[in-house]
Amino acid sequence: MKMRTDYCGNVSQAYLGQTIALCGWVQRRRDHGGVIFIDLRDREGLVQVVCDPDLAEVFATAETLRNEFCVRVEGLVRARPQGTENSNLKSGAVELLCKGLEVLNASVTPPFQLDDENLSETTRLTHRVLDLRRPQMQKNLMLRYKVAMAIRNHLDAQGFVDIETPMLTKSTPEGARDYLVPSRVHSGEFFALPQSPQLFKQMLMVAGYDRYYQITKCFRDEDLRADRQPEFTQVDIETSFLGEQEIRDLFEDMIRKVFKQTMDVELQNPFPVMAYGEAMARFGSDKPDLRVKMEFTELTDIMKDVDFKVFSGPANSDNGRVVALRVPGGAEIPRSEIDNYTKFVGIYGAKGLAWIKVNELAKGRDGLQSPIVKNIHDAALAELLKRSGAADGDILFFGADKAKVVNDAMGALRLKIGHSEFGQKAGLVQGRWEPLWVIDFPMFELDEEAGRWAACHHPFTSPKDGHEDYLTTDPGKCLAKAYDMVLNGWELGGGSVRIHKEKVQSKVFRALNISEEEAAAKFGFLLDALQYGAPPHGGLAFGLDRIVTMMSGAESIRDVIAFPKTQRAQCLLTQAPSPVDEKQLRELHIRLRQAEPKNVA
Amino acid sequence: MKMRTDYCGNVSQAYLGQTIALCGWVQRRRDHGGVIFIDLRDREGLVQVVCDPDLAEVFATAETLRNEFCVRVEGLVRARPQGTENSNLKSGAVELLCKGLEVLNASVTPPFQLDDENLSETTRLTHRVLDLRRPQMQKNLMLRYKVAMAIRNHLDAQGFVDIETPMLTKSTPEGARDYLVPSRVHSGEFFALPQSPQLFKQMLMVAGYDRYYQITKCFRDEDLRADRQPEFTQVDIETSFLGEQEIRDLFEDMIRKVFKQTMDVELQNPFPVMAYGEAMARFGSDKPDLRVKMEFTELTDIMKDVDFKVFSGPANSDNGRVVALRVPGGAEIPRSEIDNYTKFVGIYGAKGLAWIKVNELAKGRDGLQSPIVKNIHDAALAELLKRSGAADGDILFFGADKAKVVNDAMGALRLKIGHSEFGQKAGLVQGRWEPLWVIDFPMFELDEEAGRWAACHHPFTSPKDGHEDYLTTDPGKCLAKAYDMVLNGWELGGGSVRIHKEKVQSKVFRALNISEEEAAAKFGFLLDALQYGAPPHGGLAFGLDRIVTMMSGAESIRDVIAFPKTQRAQCLLTQAPSPVDEKQLRELHIRLRQAEPKNVA
Repeated sequence: MKMRTDYCGNVSQAYLGQTIALCGWVQRRRDHGGVIFIDLRDREGLVQVVCDPDLAEVFATAETLRNEFCVRVEGLVRARPQGTENSNLKSGAVELLCKGLEVLNASVTPPFQLDDENLSETTRLTHRVLDLRRPQMQKNLMLRYKVAMAIRNHLDAQGFVDIETPMLTKSTPEGARDYLVPSRVHSGEFFALPQSPQLFKQMLMVAGYDRYYQITKCFRDEDLRADRQPEFTQVDIETSFLGEQEIRDLFEDMIRKVFKQTMDVELQNPFPVMAYGEAMARFGSDKPDLRVKMEFTELTDIMKDVDFKVFSGPANSDNGRVVALRVPGGAEIPRSEIDNYTKFVGIYGAKGLAWIKVNELAKGRDGLQSPIVKNIHDAALAELLKRSGAADGDILFFGADKAKVVNDAMGALRLKIGHSEFGQKAGLVQGRWEPLWVIDFPMFELDEEAGRWAACHHPFTSPKDGHEDYLTTDPGKCLAKAYDMVLNGWELGGGSVRIHKEKVQSKVFRALNISEEEAAAKFGFLLDALQYGAPPHGGLAFGLDRIVTMMSGAESIRDVIAFPKTQRAQCLLTQAPSPVDEKQLRELHIRLRQAEPKNVA
Repeated sequence: MKMRTDYCGNVSQAYLGQTIALCGWVQRRRDHGGVIFIDLRDREGLVQVVCDPDLAEVFATAETLRNEFCVRVEGLVRARPQGTENSNLKSGAVELLCKGLEVLNASVTPPFQLDDENLSETTRLTHRVLDLRRPQMQKNLMLRYKVAMAIRNHLDAQGFVDIETPMLTKSTPEGARDYLVPSRVHSGEFFALPQSPQLFKQMLMVAGYDRYYQITKCFRDEDLRADRQPEFTQVDIETSFLGEQEIRDLFEDMIRKVFKQTMDVELQNPFPVMAYGEAMARFGSDKPDLRVKMEFTELTDIMKDVDFKVFSGPANSDNGRVVALRVPGGAEIPRSEIDNYTKFVGIYGAKGLAWIKVNELAKGRDGLQSPIVKNIHDAALAELLKRSGAADGDILFFGADKAKVVNDAMGALRLKIGHSEFGQKAGLVQGRWEPLWVIDFPMFELDEEAGRWAACHHPFTSPKDGHEDYLTTDPGKCLAKAYDMVLNGWELGGGSVRIHKEKVQSKVFRALNISEEEAAAKFGFLLDALQYGAPPHGGLAFGLDRIVTMMSGAESIRDVIAFPKTQRAQCLLTQAPSPVDEKQLRELHIRLRQAEPKNVA
């Protein structure tokens, strides 16, 4: 008989009466009524193994078993006695009567119980091999694989070709810090790990490969936020001879298929589409979570002449904004919670959080409860109540500051209230999956510190048709053929139609204040390629880690990555990074900066 | 109408009478009889476009076209006039009568003709984007994709799961030099780019993932030989609960399927299997090219007492070897060619190349022509002629030296003669595809310089059943559960059953003279993992670049990689590696060693 004839988790009533061999790990051993029961686990699930004392040798071996021993079992599949079935398991109606038992490898006592739900992340990442045995981690990584394979199959059927681009490459201009790799052969020179294969995929389009994809690692040496990793996986796609709408249709269809195939979820068809301007106006975000059924009321225009500096100041300033967020039924939110919200918006730079509780509209000002309402004259008050659609029992929160602060703070507050216990009870959050395309992004945003325009997406993004002249006359007005796919407030992916004419590319560099010399030094090879009949092309990139985190409902991106780094960019399992020896540094023509090198002997 | 309705290369008689839109590049423009013919090219092939002068605007545009212009054409598919069909093209029976013509992007004159077969590699890699437009390069990369996808589909069907392992990791013990990545967060510490995911895949087996694969980049900072790249792509596979034979069967089946699906080639079933010892004895190589129908004749034992130091010296030395290589029909090889062969074996350290031409066996010594035959006494001569099966018209070449020199030199000579014009004519090379498993590798080889044992495969390889005791008593005798898949003299992949018991692993480390401290520092995380019920497991890794190079018949591995490095580890397209600025170095806590830093301002 083979070492193993099937997976534990697959054994079911269909196997009744068969003699099979299983391999797996002891999840639990129970001694009950002179019989030993083993829950045997493999990646597909659990099966109950029964060791009777009448097989003395088997029984003696069974008595030595401890949790996480790796064993091989041969036995007969039989029905469990009536009343002992376990309907939570696929194998719950049957059990394996053990005829042979071999310990393939013993285990020392694990440092924690695998089913402990309260492990610190440090413990989990230090003992990652054991952590990865937990069924939830196995489910996450299996889902990740299924998603990746569904993407590959979709792209393959559409004629896309996976072409590998280099990992050892030149610094790319994505704006983040590069990971560098010193060259041994070329003293004083460095490779950079790719932030994305952007320029290579564009060159593949120029080279005529027509439809490219790659599921590949990208690298950014940035201080890590909760959902970032130094290395992350990008589904990177590019196509020639398609317009913006066709590109979006193709990848909307792909994501719908992925959700259907891997989770049996039907996403909307088609996804709603919203201009960037509208998204910022209504939700203060370019990735609005449409599950939350609240939006901003614009008040900037009507607060210019109120006798309340907190509102009139921003309303009269160039980049100021005043909005209200109406929370239906929110009048019941207690003062203590409002205080919490005030602290919360402070994280985003808001200096306070004005509010009006609408107790009884019919009573006019007397029906409103608020520390600020006295400062707002009748006309403005009437208009704000009208615009916001305020009704008895609502609360209005106000944001008034620089537009960025208002958008960030009130946008975050909208999500916080929507997803709070109150918001869920009040029906302010609805729908399980709410996808959205955000389009018509600006080409540029003002870098206030540097006092110049920076690319919103990247400098290879095409301006919208008819907007090319703005590149020279009014860059701030110039919109881009850029698009982001958003789901439940997360950016799943984004992309753009690229510039395929060298002349337009040069104009964009000028708008960005990039000199010809700098452009040639950084992207000369792309500019050169554009001269040789570059085709119209565009594409996008999805963040695989993030998609799978969403789909699995994981709390952290680290729960869908087998061997992630901590937020201090360390691997606790292998202890990377680590010191290296002096000989290695010498060969790479570098030395450490600190006085006392931390070298290994 | 869409920008494009189909690929140029797909247009055929099935499209007759249809109006279609195509996009592509001008391969050639011919003006003939007042009509302009355009060969339009896309990734699928060519189609002929005809521009008649009666559409004045179209014709005027057509007159501006030059090679490599990117254009869009709308037109009617019609039959070519009789006698002008081109049977080399799928579209050769039809042409597109142009009704609309748009230049999507002009092209400056390319620096070379795309169909120039004599380009230097420097030119090709510098202008890689244009080089990648060449049909042969497109075929190679498409084949590469098909091979990778066939591998994925096979593995998917077998329950293997693609799990990504880290790129930023710790130095691995594969023996080659690591590429290092300085850490910004952890001053003085470094990540290493993986030489292979070996330890991670073993940990995934310990974690219970059961069947893992990954098609992933690996890195070795070594001086490059013709078929090496700093980054290369490995098909990396590991499985639990299978024995050596089952693992080999599974992947032999995979490679057979890949050849069948992508090239319609039926490889032998099953592959022959040969022990390492036999391969070295017969062919002087652990990856013999079985297409070459010649093998060594062992003479060491009969040359001990000849009065010819060149033979008797090695024959009496511990690690010496004397062999003959019989070349059937080789007596006709001219003296000048023998001189070339003598130089050739010199590359491998051979100090000369003795030979005997067998003109007429019946005449005894008089029938032999040779500078050395006088030195060999009758008994030895008779035995060598008998063992080698020498016949009239043959030539025998001799290797006598340290075994390694003999194996390398005579093994290389065997291939050189076999594949030479003479060898082909004489039928010394036969068969198009000759696969082979080489098994039973030694666990260790003596590192003569260091005077200690080194792992032949890697230190995680399991000894053969029954050989565990040799680990302590006689490491040189210990064989491993290691296997290489060889095709036409190339190693396609290799692997082993791994050690899953910590006790055995420790014994191997001791045999390798690796102290407990060193083992703990380098592989502590693996040793730790082995304690927790590690399952029996094994796997292998295939070199994707090499497989595709073989399949495509490419001359160099660089012809199946989109953006390869030169043999000086440079990317001529992007000019990587390159100097970086001082600020970046400072952030990474390193400085350059040379006095005059080559920094960018």
